[in-house]
Amino acid sequence: MPVISEVTIRRTRREDVGVIVAMLADDPLGGARERIEDPLPRSYFTAFEQLARDPNILLVVAEDGEGAVVGCLQLCILPGLSSQGASRGLIEDVRVASHCRSRGIGEQMVQWAVERLGFARSHVGMTLRF
Amino acid sequence: MPVISEVTIRRTRREDVGVIVAMLADDPLGGARERIEDPLPRSYFTAFEQLARDPNILLVVAEDGEGAVVGCLQLCILPGLSSQGASRGLIEDVRVASHCRSRGIGEQMVQWAVERLGFARSHVGMTLRF
Repeated sequence: MPVISEVTIRRTRREDVGVIVAMLADDPLGGARERIEDPLPRSYFTAFEQLARDPNILLVVAEDGEGAVVGCLQLCILPGLSSQGASRGLIEDVRVASHCRSRGIGEQMVQWAVERLGFARSHVGMTLRF
Repeated sequence: MPVISEVTIRRTRREDVGVIVAMLADDPLGGARERIEDPLPRSYFTAFEQLARDPNILLVVAEDGEGAVVGCLQLCILPGLSSQGASRGLIEDVRVASHCRSRGIGEQMVQWAVERLGFARSHVGMTLRF
């Protein structure tokens, strides 16, 4: 049985951007489209500021017991007319640091996002389809 | 060869909501989840007001030569950290009135959305993958 690592999910801060970008770059697709430089390209921080201002987007990280960032997830709420005007939830950019994979961290982050959506008050309630 | 109907794409107005909801309801999935009543449930108008206020969402309709609404499409811009902080475009809720299908109207709307994304200025440019 793999070891399950309990993580804490919290809102992303500006100083987490570097760790998140490193995780985004750490797979074959991301390796080709990110730019890991020191300092990081300004475009990442411009995007972070845009995300932080957007009331429909929540970018979070997962912290391990020592406070190290080991995962990230972006939750988007999309208003729309269909389903009687219900908003939809969209989960994007889920990543777990390569040395922490297969310990249930991604599952905890997605579970957190699903519960967050479930608790969001809506005029018609939220429907989750799997 | 089917007849191609040229349409005009314009931003949705409050008085279009009823026609859009009728199109959303006009397929097996939508028929089960929309509520066509007179007057329409208030939740549709609440959602419309939310869409109209959101700078990252553009809900448009396609008008035929007589000014009748024959299609709809929702374009969402999603900021994010990946791809060097590039925003993503998301196309949702594309519908064409049942009596106007197979005339290239959906294609014109999607083409409009793709061009709109292409013209959006970005610090890294936009990438479209098909």
